[in-house]
Amino acid sequence: MLDATLSRIDIEMKQSLERLFDFLKIKSISTDPAFRKDCDEAADWLVSHLQSFGAKVEKFETGGHPIVKGHLGSGNGPHVLFYGHYDVQPVDPLELWESDPFEPIIEDLPSGPVIRARGSSDDKGQLMTFVEACRVWITQNGSLPFKVTFFFEGEEESGSPNLIPFMKKHKNEISSDIVLICDTGLFESKVPSIVTMLRGILKEEIIITGPNKDLHSGMYGGISTNPAKILTNILSALHDENRTITIPGFYDGVSELPQNIKDQWGRLNFKHNQFLLDVGLSTPAGEQGRSALEMIWSRPTCEINGIKSGYINEGFKTVLPSEASAKISFRLVGDQDPLKIRRSFRKMVKNLVPVDCKVTFLEHEASKANQMDTSSLQFEKAREAISEEWGIEAAFIGCGGSIPIAGHFQQITGADPMLIGFARDDDQIHSPNEKYDLESFRKGIRSWVRIINSFSELNNV
Amino acid sequence: MLDATLSRIDIEMKQSLERLFDFLKIKSISTDPAFRKDCDEAADWLVSHLQSFGAKVEKFETGGHPIVKGHLGSGNGPHVLFYGHYDVQPVDPLELWESDPFEPIIEDLPSGPVIRARGSSDDKGQLMTFVEACRVWITQNGSLPFKVTFFFEGEEESGSPNLIPFMKKHKNEISSDIVLICDTGLFESKVPSIVTMLRGILKEEIIITGPNKDLHSGMYGGISTNPAKILTNILSALHDENRTITIPGFYDGVSELPQNIKDQWGRLNFKHNQFLLDVGLSTPAGEQGRSALEMIWSRPTCEINGIKSGYINEGFKTVLPSEASAKISFRLVGDQDPLKIRRSFRKMVKNLVPVDCKVTFLEHEASKANQMDTSSLQFEKAREAISEEWGIEAAFIGCGGSIPIAGHFQQITGADPMLIGFARDDDQIHSPNEKYDLESFRKGIRSWVRIINSFSELNNV
Repeated sequence: MLDATLSRIDIEMKQSLERLFDFLKIKSISTDPAFRKDCDEAADWLVSHLQSFGAKVEKFETGGHPIVKGHLGSGNGPHVLFYGHYDVQPVDPLELWESDPFEPIIEDLPSGPVIRARGSSDDKGQLMTFVEACRVWITQNGSLPFKVTFFFEGEEESGSPNLIPFMKKHKNEISSDIVLICDTGLFESKVPSIVTMLRGILKEEIIITGPNKDLHSGMYGGISTNPAKILTNILSALHDENRTITIPGFYDGVSELPQNIKDQWGRLNFKHNQFLLDVGLSTPAGEQGRSALEMIWSRPTCEINGIKSGYINEGFKTVLPSEASAKISFRLVGDQDPLKIRRSFRKMVKNLVPVDCKVTFLEHEASKANQMDTSSLQFEKAREAISEEWGIEAAFIGCGGSIPIAGHFQQITGADPMLIGFARDDDQIHSPNEKYDLESFRKGIRSWVRIINSFSELNNV
Repeated sequence: MLDATLSRIDIEMKQSLERLFDFLKIKSISTDPAFRKDCDEAADWLVSHLQSFGAKVEKFETGGHPIVKGHLGSGNGPHVLFYGHYDVQPVDPLELWESDPFEPIIEDLPSGPVIRARGSSDDKGQLMTFVEACRVWITQNGSLPFKVTFFFEGEEESGSPNLIPFMKKHKNEISSDIVLICDTGLFESKVPSIVTMLRGILKEEIIITGPNKDLHSGMYGGISTNPAKILTNILSALHDENRTITIPGFYDGVSELPQNIKDQWGRLNFKHNQFLLDVGLSTPAGEQGRSALEMIWSRPTCEINGIKSGYINEGFKTVLPSEASAKISFRLVGDQDPLKIRRSFRKMVKNLVPVDCKVTFLEHEASKANQMDTSSLQFEKAREAISEEWGIEAAFIGCGGSIPIAGHFQQITGADPMLIGFARDDDQIHSPNEKYDLESFRKGIRSWVRIINSFSELNNV
């Protein structure tokens, strides 16, 4: 049964690509109101396509772009929800595109053929790997072995302002045993992987104010407090000489990596030299005694994202600034509590602010890390399935950034999403000349068919 | 003889003011090419006015605005040169002026009458105190007791680009025994004083570069070096906990204040509380164990004038910046060598820059402090003369900023200038509604007459 379904994918690839191209031609740029109708058209396209192979689909109007939700199949297996987004990033600067972003083409590169178009990778191409897998499965086998819910939004690239209210309102219908998200990539462009750890984030902005106006450093230099100086004292105090973060209680809730994950990561044989070399660096600069992958996936960070004080234009002004500000963000892991860390950080900063300066804190985002419970059987089943398809041992990996939808599912429906994707590091998502490898598309569809097959062996979990 | 001359000042005050008003009406804004003719007119006005009481005057064309040089008198006394500038600052924002900046008026304030106009204080009013003193002296006594050279430029407010070449070319004619400059003020608006110490300056700009582009702090945070962090480490290392500057050799050439100056400064009874309160501060923040006046006049400083890195606009971007830069300036005193300090500073910075970051230094101004040799008799004579006029013991004071013309005279003619002025702290120079107290003008003229009188007792020094 599996082999025949997999064969059908290859036989019908031409038609699969035609469908994807139809979808890619729709200019569903969500941030630009000029493309409002296009976003609507993309939602309609999905509705009619899902209906074409039997799904019961509804389009929901929101304050912004519509959400498409559809159901298909039944059975004793788990209820599986698949999330994707049909909106795409703007295309400017258009002059840097070598072909029309909304006229998809197949291009032969030395590394193999690619699909070139805006959204080919992020996320229409990835979304369609799962949709095609379902379509082929039904064509070949008559029906899916379990209930599948499709859940597509059109505002992922514009902050998803209507997503959480919708999820809360439709909590029952979107509550599932398994959540699949196809918006990530292959590790180092070749190793299939499931993202099971996402770092959380805490953003802090501090403004140190000293004198009530900018002063002349000739007249006041040496006697007046200098907020820029105070700010640098604060910022340099945030790490010690081992680059450990010094905020009291900061590491509460940070656990050591489980041995099985550590082993998997070790086998990934991460080329941190090349990773750094690509951006002009040579040496991991994080906490002493940690591996490179730990530094970016499983260890918390404290980074300065911006500093501003005094005269910053060309030339020189001997001004003694009245104000100095910095944006600082923390990547959080494990059970670190962003609000507790915020309090501790602010207390520490206040203690470093001398008489004659005051500090103002601006409130920004604060969210916990997401960690999936990989002990449930479905994670292992999915990992085996994609290992089989790609011929390489797949891994549970981390992700240094955040993928907000993962947290939304955890918080609203309680499900740990499985983030499985087939993008490559050089897909140029959000940039001109976005592409998706034909191999990613084909093996992506095949991966989902294998996953559907292996999930069919699960009882309702 | 002195009393009669002083009386004549008061008797002829109306005419003195009329002359000053004529001069103030000329829109000699040197930075704006639209007022080129006005600058020329101001120079011509000075030429003809100086000629009216017998001076031999020449107007010298420069690449910019003319320089006026005149000679008057002879005798056994010292050769005295007086420097002033006839150009003024721009007047914008014009809407903040309560009267026309070029229609001088006398206004009665609770503190006494003032002359309101652009340039009334800086520097036409001050310049005219000396010119009027010479004119009155000649009217009353027939001739000056020694040779006086008038030296007026028209580019002081626009960086004096043509001054040094002119001074070098005319070195012989402007070499004098005594140089007088009237472009400073009364200490705390009431104590007559002679500025005898000017701090030097060293400006440094450093750019720390890390990754070859801005990075995403999710993907790279924790493993990549952060130039903003390195910069704050460097900047915070420039002072120790006693606010002493840590650059090796920085204090070489810094002497303790002579006891007589220390005593004079003590008697000034400087209200540092009010000085700081005016700018929203309360506590002297400089080196421990130093008086407030030492901090601003006789101690060197290290101040951050600007810092810039990463995302500095509203909102938040979790960028890991590729670059971080700072502008830092040092006020120098005594015999501190700016070039030696530059080398030591740069060496220290380089030692704090880790692998994967590089530092670039931009070259800016570097000039030594100016210290006048107050042991020569003329300084004491002038001090006695102005003490007598103002009825308050005058002092030799410092100035935290720099007055470039003082250094030019020291370097080109070897003379230590005497900086004597009668401006008040609230004169609003460079701002709308500039004024000069009528008392400053009257007692200013009287002060110079007393100084001329006391200098006439000096032999050629």
